[in-house]
Amino acid sequence: MTKQLSPAVSICRDLIRCPSVTPAEAGALKVLEDLLKPAGFEVHRVVFSEEGTPDVENLFATIGSGGPHFVFAGHTDVVPAGDEAAWTHAPFEGTISDGMIHGRGTADMKGGVAAFAAAALAFVKAHPAGPQGRISFLITGDEEGPAVNGTAKLLQWAKDQGYTFDACIVGEPTNPEQLGDAIKVGRRGSLSGALQVRGTQGHVAYQHLADNPIPGMLKLLGALASIELDRGNERFLPSNLEITSVDVGNTAYNIIPAKVEARFNVRFNDTWSLDSLKAYLEALLKEAAPNGLDWTLEFKPDNSESFLTHDEDLIATLSAAVATVTGRTPELSTGGGTSDARFIKNYCPVVEFGLVGQTMHKVDEQVAVADLDQLSEIYLQFLKSYFIK
Amino acid sequence: MTKQLSPAVSICRDLIRCPSVTPAEAGALKVLEDLLKPAGFEVHRVVFSEEGTPDVENLFATIGSGGPHFVFAGHTDVVPAGDEAAWTHAPFEGTISDGMIHGRGTADMKGGVAAFAAAALAFVKAHPAGPQGRISFLITGDEEGPAVNGTAKLLQWAKDQGYTFDACIVGEPTNPEQLGDAIKVGRRGSLSGALQVRGTQGHVAYQHLADNPIPGMLKLLGALASIELDRGNERFLPSNLEITSVDVGNTAYNIIPAKVEARFNVRFNDTWSLDSLKAYLEALLKEAAPNGLDWTLEFKPDNSESFLTHDEDLIATLSAAVATVTGRTPELSTGGGTSDARFIKNYCPVVEFGLVGQTMHKVDEQVAVADLDQLSEIYLQFLKSYFIK
Repeated sequence: MTKQLSPAVSICRDLIRCPSVTPAEAGALKVLEDLLKPAGFEVHRVVFSEEGTPDVENLFATIGSGGPHFVFAGHTDVVPAGDEAAWTHAPFEGTISDGMIHGRGTADMKGGVAAFAAAALAFVKAHPAGPQGRISFLITGDEEGPAVNGTAKLLQWAKDQGYTFDACIVGEPTNPEQLGDAIKVGRRGSLSGALQVRGTQGHVAYQHLADNPIPGMLKLLGALASIELDRGNERFLPSNLEITSVDVGNTAYNIIPAKVEARFNVRFNDTWSLDSLKAYLEALLKEAAPNGLDWTLEFKPDNSESFLTHDEDLIATLSAAVATVTGRTPELSTGGGTSDARFIKNYCPVVEFGLVGQTMHKVDEQVAVADLDQLSEIYLQFLKSYFIK
Repeated sequence: MTKQLSPAVSICRDLIRCPSVTPAEAGALKVLEDLLKPAGFEVHRVVFSEEGTPDVENLFATIGSGGPHFVFAGHTDVVPAGDEAAWTHAPFEGTISDGMIHGRGTADMKGGVAAFAAAALAFVKAHPAGPQGRISFLITGDEEGPAVNGTAKLLQWAKDQGYTFDACIVGEPTNPEQLGDAIKVGRRGSLSGALQVRGTQGHVAYQHLADNPIPGMLKLLGALASIELDRGNERFLPSNLEITSVDVGNTAYNIIPAKVEARFNVRFNDTWSLDSLKAYLEALLKEAAPNGLDWTLEFKPDNSESFLTHDEDLIATLSAAVATVTGRTPELSTGGGTSDARFIKNYCPVVEFGLVGQTMHKVDEQVAVADLDQLSEIYLQFLKSYFIK
């Protein structure tokens, strides 16, 4: 006999059972549509296309009227399970065992989507006349992929439909250890670059006829490896540059290669903009490059500015909900990687709070059933405080 | 109607027509055997084997008795032709056009072997009683390959048969521009090494949880890139270290890699031995490595000591022959890469002189017909001077 599952856990399990590895929808958005439509939500399934990327399905659901307009943002796509044989429980089953629900996407972030769906349904049920304002879902299937046919286009689509947003919570897993650890109130920006140094190939025994590009690259990388961009500030960690690859691909010990390439990424705080950081790095490398070195620096297109959310009311309301349910005061963090919040921040204030992220993207991804229920309760508390002052 | 070819050109063409890409014999040694046997040479075809390497055929031919014992050393194997369609003349045809003979191996070094065969045959014909001493051929099919089943083993084999050598000329192409430019009287040694630095993989946004191995590798490579080993001496170029590859192979901009590898090669003069150089590099890298860096240095097995030939008589005799035929005084060089001379120097004094090397290992490898004939004349002059004082 199966124990009765709570709504959040039940929805989460239904979502896990859809193997929605980016860009596959695999029924995950259908699960949400079938929940929200009967509860009175207007549901739009929107497909975006772009040459060179796969078509992706997205979902926009909305209920209520007037303002404020609160939106919950998330994604139902997941990263691949990898070697399924390495999993203790099958990755697309949603097995519940020892108080944990197992499967790819439980933490990142079908659990968050399920918790919010359960909270929104409970809120709407308790307020049959609808919220004093509007609650929407902005759910993409392209967060773990190129992120081209997802949230960015869905936001533009919603704007084109006449929707404006007043506040957003992204349900990404923000807690390093325990539910209640941290709300994200911004993110560092990200800048990726590639260096190439060109020389002249030749035999090591005739080095005067060749021009080894590696020593010049070492000068450039030495400059990158030794910079201190800033020391961070009250809200942000220090900016940080990591050299992520250096590649020649020469297997012959007696050949001086013609070319060496390197890649780097900077995670930067609000001390910098993309433009000021690019200018700084260009000048630094120009200074470091030996005379006559044939080199190029190319910045990659998928960069993002840092941002910090200044809506103290939104932050305080969510913090209070977290504290009420978990008894813990969340840290206001800007650490970690980028998320779709980088697109949303251009439309409305955005904060992020979800489950514990420890197992995300790993084998045996799992979250505590109790956390799922608590998260749903936090979202419900937030909706009550936000809409019913 | 075909113009009558000189013996050197005719033999060279016959050799070119054997596609003896290492380790294939392809009839090339048979060409020599069929020339030398009728002239009175005792010819041995010797096959060497070693696990993990292909079997290789070699040839030892000898005539005369007593001393001195002069040996000509060379190889009939060639590097691959690559894209045969890129050649102006088919690489295994030996086409003669506009005063040039074309084909893979004309310069490196079927031309040298052909010139010596023509010279030895002419010398033997002119001295039917045989030389006052012994003339031998030490010809391998494994110079361009692993060099495991070639000259090194053939020397040992000859020693086991009771042969000792007094002097050797290796017929490798030693002239950078013109026949007569340079005799090689030694070679720098070669030492190859590989570095590995290990860290901990992680996401760039959580760099405190990762340990990027690249900055540590930059310190090690910076030390290698900035050393001046010596300034050379009268007979040798300065020793030189080239970093030949640096490799991570990480295509993700947001991942800090777990490992970086690098390779280097040193060409070193007689200021150093393999042992003293290894010790120096180990100490230098130890000094440069940041505390706690997880790194290893591995020296590759196919290294060689430098050497310098001190037989002034041999050098003077060959130089005089070159000057007589070409009107040019050859430079006594120790530049360039390694050759089988590194094995022969353990048995007898060895010098190297052959054709112009500009097109060796390239598409459209070719030598001048006039050079081939001059080289044969130089070898004949040498034999006369060496044996008939």
